[in-house]
Amino acid sequence: MNYEDIAKQFQNLPALDEDFAAAAAAREGNLTKPAGSLGRLEELSAWCAAWQGRYPPALDSVQILVFAGNHGVTARGVSAFPAEVTVQMVANFAAGGAAINQLAALQGAELTVQALDLDTPTADFTSGPAMTEAECAAAFFTGFASVDETADALIVGEMGIGNTTAAAALSCALFGGAPADWTGPGTGLDAAGIAVKTRAVAAAMDRHGEDISDPLEALRRVGGRELAAMAGAVLAARHKRIPVILDGFVATAAVSVLDKAVPGALDHCVAGHVSGEPGHRRLLEKLGMQPLLDLGMRLGEASGAAVALGVLRCALAAHNGMATFDEAAVSRED
Amino acid sequence: MNYEDIAKQFQNLPALDEDFAAAAAAREGNLTKPAGSLGRLEELSAWCAAWQGRYPPALDSVQILVFAGNHGVTARGVSAFPAEVTVQMVANFAAGGAAINQLAALQGAELTVQALDLDTPTADFTSGPAMTEAECAAAFFTGFASVDETADALIVGEMGIGNTTAAAALSCALFGGAPADWTGPGTGLDAAGIAVKTRAVAAAMDRHGEDISDPLEALRRVGGRELAAMAGAVLAARHKRIPVILDGFVATAAVSVLDKAVPGALDHCVAGHVSGEPGHRRLLEKLGMQPLLDLGMRLGEASGAAVALGVLRCALAAHNGMATFDEAAVSRED
Repeated sequence: MNYEDIAKQFQNLPALDEDFAAAAAAREGNLTKPAGSLGRLEELSAWCAAWQGRYPPALDSVQILVFAGNHGVTARGVSAFPAEVTVQMVANFAAGGAAINQLAALQGAELTVQALDLDTPTADFTSGPAMTEAECAAAFFTGFASVDETADALIVGEMGIGNTTAAAALSCALFGGAPADWTGPGTGLDAAGIAVKTRAVAAAMDRHGEDISDPLEALRRVGGRELAAMAGAVLAARHKRIPVILDGFVATAAVSVLDKAVPGALDHCVAGHVSGEPGHRRLLEKLGMQPLLDLGMRLGEASGAAVALGVLRCALAAHNGMATFDEAAVSRED
Repeated sequence: MNYEDIAKQFQNLPALDEDFAAAAAAREGNLTKPAGSLGRLEELSAWCAAWQGRYPPALDSVQILVFAGNHGVTARGVSAFPAEVTVQMVANFAAGGAAINQLAALQGAELTVQALDLDTPTADFTSGPAMTEAECAAAFFTGFASVDETADALIVGEMGIGNTTAAAALSCALFGGAPADWTGPGTGLDAAGIAVKTRAVAAAMDRHGEDISDPLEALRRVGGRELAAMAGAVLAARHKRIPVILDGFVATAAVSVLDKAVPGALDHCVAGHVSGEPGHRRLLEKLGMQPLLDLGMRLGEASGAAVALGVLRCALAAHNGMATFDEAAVSRED
């Protein structure tokens, strides 16, 4: 697989199955509750059935993929934490000590963490492309190949010191606006630190200019390996008709590449939450996505999406298990 | 127990345990994540520990109490559904067919439904008090006595055709404003139906006047049995140091009586969600509560709180299970 093969995967994306969406809507209207009274839970059941292409929908087997990458842009002082924390946290994931370990265990989801060439950080994208074409393709197809086709849903997340700077640069490349529109405290920068980060994003925009008007080139030039891997995994999920719960700012920035390359490419995704990192809210607005949760989380690691999984399971439990008006002999509206 | 005994239970409310809140905060700061990056999940863990008065906090055993009542005000045409639906839905709860049955089963919570004199609806409060003092006390202490002192958390909810009209009247009595500020579609009224409902609330305000400036009298005169029972249960939970997850508009209106009677009486409660019923958002603002979820749910039955339970469990799983920086040998901020 090489760089040109990525764009080939943008073709022939399956659409949702209208018949299963209709089956869900028909049952929903007969369940023992006022019409619409479960709010977004109702649309989630139909969305899940339509993308899974089966009825009733299920969320028994959920895969969580966390990709880790290192970033040359950390040399610019863009993070509150030292770059060595990426590899330390991968060890923490392996030992079961991170937040996502606890959340995956609670939710009964299958967690896999993949470290992507941590010994070879991406290049500092303020002075050149973050990745070669070969590096970008390798990361993308690592993600693409990681999706379990038997999963009922996929969650993707990341770990990578410096990667909110990459996400800000990628968002700025894809959606425009000023660098400061997309930068924030990340792991905990103060105002001076955010100013440094904003200057790094501005430098990247200047350095790459028109070369990042192409979404895939933007991913390669100002993204990172874990971002490429998440984009690959979410695209693979589309081909396999697996619904995706999106996590926070970095994950959403990564998959925005797909939306920009093929409008509608994220229709099989729901925004699990909106992060406390300010760029995420702006990004979701650009994508026209309404997050399920708004709890000020800003950890990454797929943690927000893992919490949101509980909401989707509630939706399906109600939809699949409730009695109809006829079954329960409950009167309808006057 | 009689009506005067209710006010006695407003006395000697236990406060949260600062030591356990401090223990939670101390551990939180050492966990392998940027400070504050789990957002509201972090405060929920500390809140839970402080009210449970133990460390670590737990949410293994959760009690869901649903109270059902009938309302004389339905004679005024304030609901889209006929009053017979209350008893039909109680049968549906017993048969396991309602939304809350599915959600309680999914969450592994213990659900109990109590029908409160359904054959004797409250009086139409547009022309007199909804309940006698004895009726109000009986319902209140039914709720008060229903709380399992071994539960780690309590969720209260309701079923009662007509009860969003009672909740609107009670909210208007407790917090002022115009009747139209508090009325909404409920189970599905159109604009003309909402106007009928608003006139019923206005009629109640006119009829009861200054008599409903006392919170408990407001509950008795324009509330209902299930509202009184929910207030009783949440007050009992306070005495037993059991954290409460509040459900929607009717449940929140009911317990607002406690807040008005004793400021701080709801400090052991978290707002599980904000309902699609518009009065609920206003009510939460009056109470200074930030809901955990905002999903457009408006079913009642404790359904929104049951979904929110998943968020609290995520909070505790992360807090209790994560490794510290020292344990995982992860570097801290530069």
